[in-house]
Amino acid sequence: MTETVMNPNWIAVDWGTTNLRIWHCDQAGNVLDETKVQAGMGTLTASEYEGVLISHIDHHLSDDVITEVLVCGMAGARQGWQDAGYLTAPCDTPALNQAVTVHTADPRIMVRILPGIKQPEPADVMRGEETQIVGFLKQTTDYNGLICLPGTHSKWVHVQNGQVVEFQTFMTGEVYDLLSRSSVLKHSVSGDGFSQFDFVDAVKSAFENPADASSQLFRLRAQHLVHDTGATILRARLSGILIGQEVAAMQRQWNHLPITLIGEEALCSLYKSALEAVGTSVDLNLSAAPTLRGLIAIRTGKG
Amino acid sequence: MTETVMNPNWIAVDWGTTNLRIWHCDQAGNVLDETKVQAGMGTLTASEYEGVLISHIDHHLSDDVITEVLVCGMAGARQGWQDAGYLTAPCDTPALNQAVTVHTADPRIMVRILPGIKQPEPADVMRGEETQIVGFLKQTTDYNGLICLPGTHSKWVHVQNGQVVEFQTFMTGEVYDLLSRSSVLKHSVSGDGFSQFDFVDAVKSAFENPADASSQLFRLRAQHLVHDTGATILRARLSGILIGQEVAAMQRQWNHLPITLIGEEALCSLYKSALEAVGTSVDLNLSAAPTLRGLIAIRTGKG
Repeated sequence: MTETVMNPNWIAVDWGTTNLRIWHCDQAGNVLDETKVQAGMGTLTASEYEGVLISHIDHHLSDDVITEVLVCGMAGARQGWQDAGYLTAPCDTPALNQAVTVHTADPRIMVRILPGIKQPEPADVMRGEETQIVGFLKQTTDYNGLICLPGTHSKWVHVQNGQVVEFQTFMTGEVYDLLSRSSVLKHSVSGDGFSQFDFVDAVKSAFENPADASSQLFRLRAQHLVHDTGATILRARLSGILIGQEVAAMQRQWNHLPITLIGEEALCSLYKSALEAVGTSVDLNLSAAPTLRGLIAIRTGKG
Repeated sequence: MTETVMNPNWIAVDWGTTNLRIWHCDQAGNVLDETKVQAGMGTLTASEYEGVLISHIDHHLSDDVITEVLVCGMAGARQGWQDAGYLTAPCDTPALNQAVTVHTADPRIMVRILPGIKQPEPADVMRGEETQIVGFLKQTTDYNGLICLPGTHSKWVHVQNGQVVEFQTFMTGEVYDLLSRSSVLKHSVSGDGFSQFDFVDAVKSAFENPADASSQLFRLRAQHLVHDTGATILRARLSGILIGQEVAAMQRQWNHLPITLIGEEALCSLYKSALEAVGTSVDLNLSAAPTLRGLIAIRTGKG
């Protein structure tokens, strides 16, 4: 009879709606290998997750040891691999002992999925962003302020004393994608190029008159038809209208708190210029993989 | 050599983005036959229009006479059958002599397409709604007020002394369709049933705090996940948020003008309850085919 031996190396996984990111790490959190594939929750049934994961990590596994896999993101949703539940805000960010262990057929792995965070009132949920926040707080332990994580569903999170106090989600990125790819506006905003001037102008306009923002959308199409305005301008204005609405909605919650943007550089820069356009200063906290930083922090113990 | 004889009967056509409606009329505007098919601008190239039209009206045509066909709608767009141009607001509604004659291969028909109306500043366009307005004004010649035509792209039109003074378009219907069918919200709003109470509540909330409306969207998904709120409530709230935004944007232009809703009964009733919820009274002008009424009025001479 052989004894179970744990592999000192482990695997960090960010499994979202559209992408699966895998990092093979050593004990200290150094990345030995990484993979990014399109195999998100949107296309998988619960029974398919294990096979997909194994197909990408098989070469790191051995029959003699058990390799730990720590997962965050939508794989822990009700429609994901296994429901990892939610912590309830206000709350600490998730710790390793709050992860749900997944029963796997393959004996070489031990998979745990981290919970998300829910907020009863006003109702909201996050799954994945909490791990990015852990990574940020590992660096900046005494942060008291707002963290904005732009994206398909951008999140604004009030963090204080290492806790998630309150948060709010906007569908800005998804609405932008739907309008620019699938609505009547697609004929007017497709192509490359981006007018920073028009972006900022549209942000300010939506910020000052949020009630008018919804009437600005069809106007983009009309400006194309009536004035032959180009896509470089109109795409920037579409982005500016939507981000301006988001910023207008958040304004009352700023209360002079510092704001830090976490995420991918291009999108964070866009939000930074939007926030500066309405007179708010903001810090950028760019990292190639904020989620990995969080997974490492959670596995090695926070703080 | 035979002389050209005009058919006393004629054909009225409303050719939109998704539907083609055809009415075979007598001289007095009585409908002898009608057809509705899905063959809209969205799926046709310019050279295909004539064949599609002929396939649906061939049985009404004769080799001995020329039958007049009067068209309004998106068939007159740049990407339609033939560009029928725009009148420029403020302006009278279109008259028969402003229609563009289309060259057809079939000698049995004479096709004319009515122009739309454009507005240079703020940029806006309509194509088809102007014909519905003609039909309404034929009945109510001295109307001075706003006409709201709810739909995929709802229009608010200020009409005075028989003229289109100014107008504004909202993408409310299209955004509702995109969000309810293609966004993350589809899981939470699909099904039947509609809570009038929640619709009105969401309208009021969006009307009072238009800046917050964009933050209300993801909350629908979260209410489903966190509180298991049902689709009957959430679908009504989605509709209420979007119509409430539209109504909030229009509010400053009301100026105590009367408001008349023109269009399909279910949607007009929804807008009526939204407007009444924010303290505005409104008239309904329901007609099975407001566009036909307009085409008849234009062909027989307005007023």
